[in-house]
Amino acid sequence: MTETAPHSILTGTGIGQGVVVGVVARMSDPLPEPQDSPSSRSVDEETERARAALSVVARDLEARGKTAGGTAADVLEAQAMMAEDPMLSEIIDESLARGTTAERAVFEAFANFRDQLAAMGGYLGERAADLDDVSQRVIAQLTGVAAPGVPNPDHPFVLVARDLAPADTALLDLDKVLGLVTSDGGPTSHTAILAREKSIVAVVGVTDASALADGTTVVIDAAAGTVTAAPSDDQIAVAERRIAERQAAAVAPVTPGALKDGTVIPLLANLGSSAGAQAAADAGAEGVGLFRTEFLFLDAGGSAPTVDQQREHYTRLLQAFPGKKVVVRVLDAGADKPLPFLNDAHEENPALGLRGLRALRASEDILREQLTALAEADKATDADLWVMAPMVSTVEETKYFVEIAREYGIKTAGVMVEVPSLALLAPQVLAASDFASIGTNDLTQYTLAADRMLGSVAALQDPWHPAVLRLVGEVGAAGAATGKPVGICGEAAADPLLAVVLVGLGATTLSMSTPALVDVRASLLKYTLDEAKQLAEIALAADGAAESRAAVAAAALTLKEA
Amino acid sequence: MTETAPHSILTGTGIGQGVVVGVVARMSDPLPEPQDSPSSRSVDEETERARAALSVVARDLEARGKTAGGTAADVLEAQAMMAEDPMLSEIIDESLARGTTAERAVFEAFANFRDQLAAMGGYLGERAADLDDVSQRVIAQLTGVAAPGVPNPDHPFVLVARDLAPADTALLDLDKVLGLVTSDGGPTSHTAILAREKSIVAVVGVTDASALADGTTVVIDAAAGTVTAAPSDDQIAVAERRIAERQAAAVAPVTPGALKDGTVIPLLANLGSSAGAQAAADAGAEGVGLFRTEFLFLDAGGSAPTVDQQREHYTRLLQAFPGKKVVVRVLDAGADKPLPFLNDAHEENPALGLRGLRALRASEDILREQLTALAEADKATDADLWVMAPMVSTVEETKYFVEIAREYGIKTAGVMVEVPSLALLAPQVLAASDFASIGTNDLTQYTLAADRMLGSVAALQDPWHPAVLRLVGEVGAAGAATGKPVGICGEAAADPLLAVVLVGLGATTLSMSTPALVDVRASLLKYTLDEAKQLAEIALAADGAAESRAAVAAAALTLKEA
Repeated sequence: MTETAPHSILTGTGIGQGVVVGVVARMSDPLPEPQDSPSSRSVDEETERARAALSVVARDLEARGKTAGGTAADVLEAQAMMAEDPMLSEIIDESLARGTTAERAVFEAFANFRDQLAAMGGYLGERAADLDDVSQRVIAQLTGVAAPGVPNPDHPFVLVARDLAPADTALLDLDKVLGLVTSDGGPTSHTAILAREKSIVAVVGVTDASALADGTTVVIDAAAGTVTAAPSDDQIAVAERRIAERQAAAVAPVTPGALKDGTVIPLLANLGSSAGAQAAADAGAEGVGLFRTEFLFLDAGGSAPTVDQQREHYTRLLQAFPGKKVVVRVLDAGADKPLPFLNDAHEENPALGLRGLRALRASEDILREQLTALAEADKATDADLWVMAPMVSTVEETKYFVEIAREYGIKTAGVMVEVPSLALLAPQVLAASDFASIGTNDLTQYTLAADRMLGSVAALQDPWHPAVLRLVGEVGAAGAATGKPVGICGEAAADPLLAVVLVGLGATTLSMSTPALVDVRASLLKYTLDEAKQLAEIALAADGAAESRAAVAAAALTLKEA
Repeated sequence: MTETAPHSILTGTGIGQGVVVGVVARMSDPLPEPQDSPSSRSVDEETERARAALSVVARDLEARGKTAGGTAADVLEAQAMMAEDPMLSEIIDESLARGTTAERAVFEAFANFRDQLAAMGGYLGERAADLDDVSQRVIAQLTGVAAPGVPNPDHPFVLVARDLAPADTALLDLDKVLGLVTSDGGPTSHTAILAREKSIVAVVGVTDASALADGTTVVIDAAAGTVTAAPSDDQIAVAERRIAERQAAAVAPVTPGALKDGTVIPLLANLGSSAGAQAAADAGAEGVGLFRTEFLFLDAGGSAPTVDQQREHYTRLLQAFPGKKVVVRVLDAGADKPLPFLNDAHEENPALGLRGLRALRASEDILREQLTALAEADKATDADLWVMAPMVSTVEETKYFVEIAREYGIKTAGVMVEVPSLALLAPQVLAASDFASIGTNDLTQYTLAADRMLGSVAALQDPWHPAVLRLVGEVGAAGAATGKPVGICGEAAADPLLAVVLVGLGATTLSMSTPALVDVRASLLKYTLDEAKQLAEIALAADGAAESRAAVAAAALTLKEA
């Protein structure tokens, strides 16, 4: 691990479009493995040291849990229990009785237990990292060094880490975090999601991030996916100009989404609950392009929410958008969002399992209740309700969903295009449906056959891949031929340059998380429809995602200079 | 569960092309749940009964394990250990002490433990079914009824079951099994694989199979995917004529694969070890279209086989096909075939994980050793060796593999097309590669985003789906444009009518399991290339898999009558 040279530029996956200049504070490195040499202390002394350290760490974790609240509290309390697990204590005592040091005894006992846990896989396997954390804390306590974890300097800083776990962020003072740089993790990692939610400038998957020393000044450019170490005065000046431009754009008057030539491209918001509706409307969202209903179901605990509860929630959402389009996606359970009342079977590959519309069709009552509530909320409000189904793979499933939605008087019923087969049959799909909305995250996952949540194949999860764009283009062409709208509601729509390409491929609306609206709006205004189509052709002709992104960026620069 | 009416026809997914007439023997139904009422026996008596039954079952399972050998032995020995697990015994004793019957105590202890196991998911979760089987055997022993499991009548029979587990088939007398009918499972289920390997006539996924009573005569028609219950004399006569025709075709002289107009379509065999090479050559295989190397690696235990071991094995294979093409696929580990030395990380969706070429690239030594052994075997023999990589998703990966194969002097290097993105970039892929071979099983799985091993989405696993055929057609067109060969090595090539469609889409060779060669050879001879192209157009224009299959079957009939 050598330190970075001044002005050297590290690359990774940028989250959002922000730019920031700041000073690095690193997550501390793991403690070295305690030596396996006999203790100079008596067995009783070492036993006392081990007990005391385990107890201090347990109390500390409990206290942090109480402060943190929420899910983090559960994690921290579980860790506190691990520190005082009787089986572990017994194993530690046995080692100590053989004359081992407390540090080494703790290290070995936890390491052994974590290996057993890791071997189990699944949920239990993932707890291995929590156990490592406890072990590190106890050893730090014993050796009198600072416990590994998030830094807490008294000034704003750029946090550099391998990746952030929920427990790490529980007590992180986000007001002081200017930016995030991680060496692991892809665009859908926990860190990336946190950055997007809190609008923190971030670059993830920066392989060489470990070379960034504490106290180094860096420029993070999320749009370019770069981290510049010890930047020159010129590099800092460029960054500060970009920051000022973005601040100006953020306060500029909000206009409806449109291209340079006036082609209207409504910009919509992705929402997970009606709570975010007002903020989206304030940021100029011209409606909702994707309203996810999973959280409503997850919050209801072990059973489905009642029709009354659902109607109330949907009514609140629709009221925030009078006269505007609101696209609600019916429950997308399964895969990473299992709901026990819908799908409790163990699946070897849940992303390829009974999820989305497949699961709803197997429990049709739940679908019928949701459609009932949606139709009632629609009658009680003035918004323009559209309803769509997730994880649709065939024309037959499309017809099934549109017909059942019609039964309840839903006027506009469509499907999400997330599965390659549906894009490949787009003409028939759009003939049977009122609209299509392309979910680029899952479409990329299935087209490249690479789990979007898995770090080792994260490089393949790139919506710039020409194969994914081919499929988007097929749906766009079918939309144009049938006169049906084709929206985009995956992360791809939040990338300002890719958004232009998607419009060139036939997208008629773009939906994104609220913070992305400003940048995408500004980007669309720079290109005509013809130019967007030219950029799309360039993207489609590329060999891969990186080539596609680079070729379009170069062509876009030429267009703006011409 | 009502019994089937005479002559009623049940449908499912047929495996192969066979026809058979036989009498049903059913897997016995699960035992009823033992009543939860106090025992009339003393605690000591019940304890003695429970101990004795557990011990009898453990000894029986051990004995079955010894007879079975192979993987089945491991499963059966693990089950024997479950029957005498000390923790389970303790829980059973506690129930018995409260006055419960032995049957109920065993039932509850096993059920509780199986739920815990199932909740763990992953490998341990799958052991829940093994535990259920042990519980059923012990309860059967206690109640004096026959243990559930495969029937063993003294005459040939048609086995009707929900699905067959490896443990079920371990002691099944396959010489007596005329046919298999299951209510669960798709075309890639364990039962289907067994049927294909052993050339047993089978229809899987017959939803109403439970209505077939013991002793009923049935006609199974695998090509049509039908099971006719209590057939009429006419139906039996038709079946017997079909059986006679197939027997005549099987002994007809073997000719090279070709269409009616003389277009040459070499017919190749899929093999998993060099042991099957001679049988394939005898059945008229004109080479090997897919030689899988996983079993060689799985058999080597915990580590990779040495270069010497590999060279010896590949040499034996190549010697069986002098002057003929042999396509070897490098190690396809991951997903359902994990190898600890290659990929030991837990993955949430292994089918979308670090498998195939992705895993080999991360452990490049193993790939280099395999290529070394293949190149050496090639030099020592006269076969025409082609080498291909599995699970390739991008043009960049294609170039990586072809270049590394060239380093070792491999003359013909190509890629499997199993991932939609690779088919969508077929022109660039074939420009960078010597050939492409389409794996229709995985290509279907990813295109429809439906796990091919999961019963609840099995209906989507159908290579007749026009989206899958579109992708095959794109690869075929790119092959024609670049003059590069395009083979098919998935199960689709073994379907005699679909094989014609695949040729119409541009496939230049077809590879299949040895038993399918006879039927595919006969089917190709019935159509000209123009007719194959017409049928392909009809398949592509369909809305779904069922429509595609039906429209092509109807058009094929018209062609033959014309």
